Amino acid sequence: MTMDIKQYMKEIGERARKASHAMAKADSAAKNKALLLIAAAIRRDADALRAANKLDLDAARANGLEPAMLDRLTLSDKAIATMAEGLEQIVALPDPIGEISNMKVRPTGIQIGQMRVPLGVIGIIYEARPNVTVDAAGLCIKSGNATILRGGSEAIHCNQALAKLVKEGLAGAGLPEEAVQVVETTDRAAVGELITMPQYVDVIVPRGGKGLIARLMQEATVPMIKHLDGICHVYIDDKADAKKALDVAFNAKCHRYGTCNTMETLLVSRAIAPSVLPELAKLYASKDVELRCDDEAKAILQGYAHLASATEEDWSTEYLAPILSIKTVADVDEAIAHINKYSSKHTDAIITEDYSKAMQFLREVDSASVMVNASTRFADGFEYGLGAEIGISNDKLHARGPVGLEGLTSLKYVVFGHGEVRA
Amino acid sequence: MTMDIKQYMKEIGERARKASHAMAKADSAAKNKALLLIAAAIRRDADALRAANKLDLDAARANGLEPAMLDRLTLSDKAIATMAEGLEQIVALPDPIGEISNMKVRPTGIQIGQMRVPLGVIGIIYEARPNVTVDAAGLCIKSGNATILRGGSEAIHCNQALAKLVKEGLAGAGLPEEAVQVVETTDRAAVGELITMPQYVDVIVPRGGKGLIARLMQEATVPMIKHLDGICHVYIDDKADAKKALDVAFNAKCHRYGTCNTMETLLVSRAIAPSVLPELAKLYASKDVELRCDDEAKAILQGYAHLASATEEDWSTEYLAPILSIKTVADVDEAIAHINKYSSKHTDAIITEDYSKAMQFLREVDSASVMVNASTRFADGFEYGLGAEIGISNDKLHARGPVGLEGLTSLKYVVFGHGEVRA
Repeated sequence: MTMDIKQYMKEIGERARKASHAMAKADSAAKNKALLLIAAAIRRDADALRAANKLDLDAARANGLEPAMLDRLTLSDKAIATMAEGLEQIVALPDPIGEISNMKVRPTGIQIGQMRVPLGVIGIIYEARPNVTVDAAGLCIKSGNATILRGGSEAIHCNQALAKLVKEGLAGAGLPEEAVQVVETTDRAAVGELITMPQYVDVIVPRGGKGLIARLMQEATVPMIKHLDGICHVYIDDKADAKKALDVAFNAKCHRYGTCNTMETLLVSRAIAPSVLPELAKLYASKDVELRCDDEAKAILQGYAHLASATEEDWSTEYLAPILSIKTVADVDEAIAHINKYSSKHTDAIITEDYSKAMQFLREVDSASVMVNASTRFADGFEYGLGAEIGISNDKLHARGPVGLEGLTSLKYVVFGHGEVRA
Repeated sequence: MTMDIKQYMKEIGERARKASHAMAKADSAAKNKALLLIAAAIRRDADALRAANKLDLDAARANGLEPAMLDRLTLSDKAIATMAEGLEQIVALPDPIGEISNMKVRPTGIQIGQMRVPLGVIGIIYEARPNVTVDAAGLCIKSGNATILRGGSEAIHCNQALAKLVKEGLAGAGLPEEAVQVVETTDRAAVGELITMPQYVDVIVPRGGKGLIARLMQEATVPMIKHLDGICHVYIDDKADAKKALDVAFNAKCHRYGTCNTMETLLVSRAIAPSVLPELAKLYASKDVELRCDDEAKAILQGYAHLASATEEDWSTEYLAPILSIKTVADVDEAIAHINKYSSKHTDAIITEDYSKAMQFLREVDSASVMVNASTRFADGFEYGLGAEIGISNDKLHARGPVGLEGLTSLKYVVFGHGEVRA
């Protein structure tokens, strides 16, 4: 039997749209109850989840999936507990829906404000991370949206098992089970349909590698909340405090290599490079970080074990590895110009004690997060106090930077009148 | 000589992107100075503007342009004065750029907030209304954006004359002349380029009829702030105050027929229809409004001079004319369901004295503006207190409803640290 994917996705879309109306009306108590029921069901069925996950892992091993992917695919005891706790954290967040802000009375007598409402239907496309199924479902439920989840085919068994628990929780709270639907086919054509049905889907949040997202960008007609990559910079100004410079530049590179908020290029003021770079190199040496330098920095770092010359390509490369490109610059103006040219507009930081240069950097660097004297690794929904994060956006429209519940909502104008008409 | 449109638009895009960096840094004083200089130049050169406009009008008449279009194309003394005053009103608005909001200290010690910054480059595509050249330029300058203006070919002479004055004002304030560029070719291929160069243009605001916008939506790869049409509803609930119902339903239809916030469909509660519809018909009769009714409303209105039966198509038709479709419904639930099915998500109103139904309508109607006891004609940037409006959005992402200066900006995260690193 051949499944008609187009028809299958259309039916999912119709059910999601219908469920979105019920979700938009749902009160906080019902939404929170659903989240708590799902958390409890996940804990209760931990054994069954591990069994489903084992089917995925066995198939993945048989298919020769690489160890990093296997790692992400694995539902350990800790991962299961974290999923349940994540839902409880979302329960604790304030419900954004229905809040009215910016109320004012106009000279005509009408009162006008803005009410926060759900976007409608959110499509989530992700790779082999089963925890995304639960995290994304939780955020969409709390924000009053319906969601269509399309996880990686490697995780199909455990995603289906999780989907059953999510539906159980929704039903237990009197909410429509169709508010969260997991696409049950691993056919890639389903993704093609999902990203081109704006009549059913209001926004797509792709979670995954650059390859996945670049592919989706080519074809999507539904708007996306996304970032393609994270080429983050730290600029050490000549007025930097040396200790802060060393702490931040080491942490931004070495805290984790594979994350999008990791520093990939270090810019150093020419005036301070001879004193700060050798000290920094001692720290990087402890982690065997390869340093790809421009001529000036390379001259200063002669003798470092993993030294290389930077090419033009290095300035726009996201290594996701213990590799760092280093460039010397004349001043903050040159640093800003370099960043605005090569940065992926994700997160960039300046290290300085100079007030005016700090303010200039904050104003002029055109990135989603701009920092003074702090590690780029802080660019994260939890660190920013959003409570949880559905994704990160490098775009300027709608949501920018780490995206929490608010990014899944919209503001509509509400007008309270007393029979006023326009003169 | 054939002009290479692709290359021509690319060069415009590059200049705009470069100018956008200078505009993002510009302080309020310089931006306001430019606006005041442009206003003064428009008043000074009123005769020259009228002469340029005469060239456009002569050509338009020779080409047989219809009277309504000629009317929009005409730069009267009043239109010239209004353009200059419009710029002065923009000067009086607060500068949105640089404002930092939502500052908070996180447990790690970092302080985080959101800074309002320009989007970058705004593309405006419009038809034969030369005043849009000045209004749009003014809003983009104040919000720190560069802009590329592509007006209707019918207004080419007067748009060029206005562009010269805008450049004079920018230069006089020390800002780059390239911050506002008017496309100098009437070749339609220029529009095709403008809407498909996301590397140079951050957002497109199309101003014009449904035909123009539908065409752009097919091809654009740059995001748009737009609305396609305005199918607005008024629902008269059975708990409506009769006077408010009559006032609002008459004003929403008859104040102006050609505007997107004009009511096109009236919904009436079955319980109140027999008493309210005949009274309303007396008002509509004074304006010869054609009433296209469902069977129930038609039975009540027997004898009305311009009575017709509504077809399914009427519920999704924007008449922009003295025509109104009327449908009787059982209750607020049926009204909301009808609106969420047929409305263009622009503006919809309920007339009621019932608190719970008013709140339900505000919450559940999924439109950019939702009103209680007020005319849909209020859905307008000026009436909402935005000061001026670059357009109206029926979409849910980014900007929704009337869009003022804020819709031309974005919020980036700013982090103030003291050397913090991620643990």
